[in-house]
Amino acid sequence: MKVLINIFPKKEILDPEAKAIKKSLNNLGFNKINDLEKGKQILISIDENDEKNAFKYAEEMCNKLLVNSTIEDHEIIVLKDR
Amino acid sequence: MKVLINIFPKKEILDPEAKAIKKSLNNLGFNKINDLEKGKQILISIDENDEKNAFKYAEEMCNKLLVNSTIEDHEIIVLKDR
Repeated sequence: MKVLINIFPKKEILDPEAKAIKKSLNNLGFNKINDLEKGKQILISIDENDEKNAFKYAEEMCNKLLVNSTIEDHEIIVLKDR
Repeated sequence: MKVLINIFPKKEILDPEAKAIKKSLNNLGFNKINDLEKGKQILISIDENDEKNAFKYAEEMCNKLLVNSTIEDHEIIVLKDR
């Protein structure tokens, strides 16, 4: 079963990388950008057939390593049909 | 209008960062992982009300800066209701 984990910096956290990307786009002439956020996406294929267990397993990986919950928010999406 | 851009390394490209994450998870006792891919996600709020134009605008930004199409694949999702 595959789980997709989306990780974004919390809204109130300043993200210098997102700022740099926005500035580069502006410099290239893209002036219609109001806001830009950059996040990480981790797609994991887990050896687990139960949806709830897969979710729990992903949540545990997030808490133990993948997400820094002080500065990041995350969401877990279990991809059923894969 | 918001567009979400998902960027992943192409399947055939070796991704040392993904490998390192997988190894760290293994070291923490997570042994059910078959495969792990790491990608980027960029959420851009564009000053544009037409869905097709927003998509085109995002595509142009991908081609000019955001995506290295030699080693990365991308998909653009226009978020209609935001």
